[in-house]
Amino acid sequence: MTALADLDTPVVTVDLDIMRENIRRVQAHLARHGIGNRPHIKTHKIPEIGKMQIAAGATGITCQKLGEVEVFVDAGVTDDILLTFNILGEPKTDRLMTLVKRVRRLAVVLDNDVVAQALSDAAARHGVDLHFLVECDTGFGRTGVQTPDEAFALARRAMRLPRMRFDGLMTFPNRDPNTRDFFDAALSLFKQAGIPVPVVSGGGTPALFTAQNFPMLTEHRAGTCVYNDAMVVSTGTAGWENCAMRVRATVVSRPTATRAILDAGSKVLTSDLYFMKGYGHVMEYPEAAITALSEEHGTVDLSACAERPKVGDVVHVVPNHCCVVTNMVDEVYGVRNGAVEVVWPVAARGKIR
Amino acid sequence: MTALADLDTPVVTVDLDIMRENIRRVQAHLARHGIGNRPHIKTHKIPEIGKMQIAAGATGITCQKLGEVEVFVDAGVTDDILLTFNILGEPKTDRLMTLVKRVRRLAVVLDNDVVAQALSDAAARHGVDLHFLVECDTGFGRTGVQTPDEAFALARRAMRLPRMRFDGLMTFPNRDPNTRDFFDAALSLFKQAGIPVPVVSGGGTPALFTAQNFPMLTEHRAGTCVYNDAMVVSTGTAGWENCAMRVRATVVSRPTATRAILDAGSKVLTSDLYFMKGYGHVMEYPEAAITALSEEHGTVDLSACAERPKVGDVVHVVPNHCCVVTNMVDEVYGVRNGAVEVVWPVAARGKIR
Repeated sequence: MTALADLDTPVVTVDLDIMRENIRRVQAHLARHGIGNRPHIKTHKIPEIGKMQIAAGATGITCQKLGEVEVFVDAGVTDDILLTFNILGEPKTDRLMTLVKRVRRLAVVLDNDVVAQALSDAAARHGVDLHFLVECDTGFGRTGVQTPDEAFALARRAMRLPRMRFDGLMTFPNRDPNTRDFFDAALSLFKQAGIPVPVVSGGGTPALFTAQNFPMLTEHRAGTCVYNDAMVVSTGTAGWENCAMRVRATVVSRPTATRAILDAGSKVLTSDLYFMKGYGHVMEYPEAAITALSEEHGTVDLSACAERPKVGDVVHVVPNHCCVVTNMVDEVYGVRNGAVEVVWPVAARGKIR
Repeated sequence: MTALADLDTPVVTVDLDIMRENIRRVQAHLARHGIGNRPHIKTHKIPEIGKMQIAAGATGITCQKLGEVEVFVDAGVTDDILLTFNILGEPKTDRLMTLVKRVRRLAVVLDNDVVAQALSDAAARHGVDLHFLVECDTGFGRTGVQTPDEAFALARRAMRLPRMRFDGLMTFPNRDPNTRDFFDAALSLFKQAGIPVPVVSGGGTPALFTAQNFPMLTEHRAGTCVYNDAMVVSTGTAGWENCAMRVRATVVSRPTATRAILDAGSKVLTSDLYFMKGYGHVMEYPEAAITALSEEHGTVDLSACAERPKVGDVVHVVPNHCCVVTNMVDEVYGVRNGAVEVVWPVAARGKIR
């Protein structure tokens, strides 16, 4: 068995005990409040971890791209998948309908009529029913219909199209009070019309531990919480000891008394700042700041550090945003008690379509 | 032959005519000034393109990681390679020495004694000579010795180690006047000591067309100029018509009158802002601004656009930083006159070690 200490750098490691506890904690919280747990697999992109989440009680998984669904279905995750992206164009709608036939319940989201029509056409072409949620923009300013009236009207139009089965509403992320107000208003429109809304799906790791404040939610989608990262720590919902992903890196240069250069740059840590001041948290030198990244270099300011690393020393960095780090590497090393227990290919890495 | 118009999105394309002209223009400029052209392959990570650069007159290539060297050597690029990274640790120094035996001239850089000693030990272990340059920090604030005196002293110490062959000095990027002043002072120290400095290596695409202002340079390393990108355009050394790389993307949502959502997010365009205001330049809508990226969504502000795209329309985005986009995808589509002529695997993608 390979020792963690023998892993060449840079390398992305996941502490298996921390991850297992993260999976348990998320499941326990949502279960306690009667909310379904539908983890977003974009964070790990590894079917084996998705299966651990399902074994712990998740009702299904969330994917963001068709290519991710394909990888997970091929790996045997075929019970319940939600694809939270507008799917458009025949190459993609054909792939989607092929998947619909392979999964017990595969649902998608939509936020406009063009997508609804294309999905209905494809479902009819393939002779399958398609379950859909209407995506609602409850304050994030990305995709989603803008008002409860629009949500209701789009759902009505889409459910009248051939083969389209309305499953409910979806948002990202839950925001207080916008999300509650939006869903309250939308749900009362559906209720007046006598239309059941079986699913109301919320999302976001920072919103996870307050999901119970949105009593209409039937399920919650969170990705990052399986690993946690500097962004999550900054929101107060996890500590460094709950961060399972570390980027193991070597100090390759000490050009000045206060500067160290790591062999991990944006090609591992990414340029995602995510409102943080630096590009990651150095566990061994918590006062250090990763002030700049080139593709292969991480520039560390040691000014605030009493102890300082020398050339050849190895450090472990908790990244700002673990999901994007996953997508940079071909494999992740699962470690426990200083030993590598498993090397997982990141099977759904780079699935951009 | 597949038409460009039939390529599903998002997808990274390279216009073959623009790229060929970029390769020609860079080579012609440096040749005119008697400076060797050593393109940095990190931008394309594709051996076939490296071979085009060599065929156009490049004296060799630059790599940033051992894994990149391995891919290019395996593909038959075995004449002259410079690896511009401090190589440390036995797993890596062993790989390096194996490569030294396969390449006519493979040189590395170093900026400290720990690396020099490790390289010498490995060279002795493998029975090979190792050519090295001393990396100098001439103003960028990353790796490199800080003063001409240090450059001279480190070179002297390293060249006395077994198997170490001093080839010269290296910096990134050329900066006026710092780089000239630094190299002038350093070179005079070597001259006084009677030590030849056969190579003085500068770098950077923005610095490419002023490389002749640094008369001591024997070669220049630039990567981005093979494709060009929004950063290069912002420096004035290329126009949009010189940008070979485009990210082809579809408008999947139009939530408001001024907002469009693309199916390309940070998983293709990356979060590299590179001092730009947005996350890429939309060729069809030059007044549009890509104001935010999630992993799979690009948020576009259309406020300034008279014409606006509808759901299903396809656009082409010139990214801020083409090198990092290359690393996000498994293949790049070479197009000419609206048709796909070649699909290149990005053979050296993700070579982080």
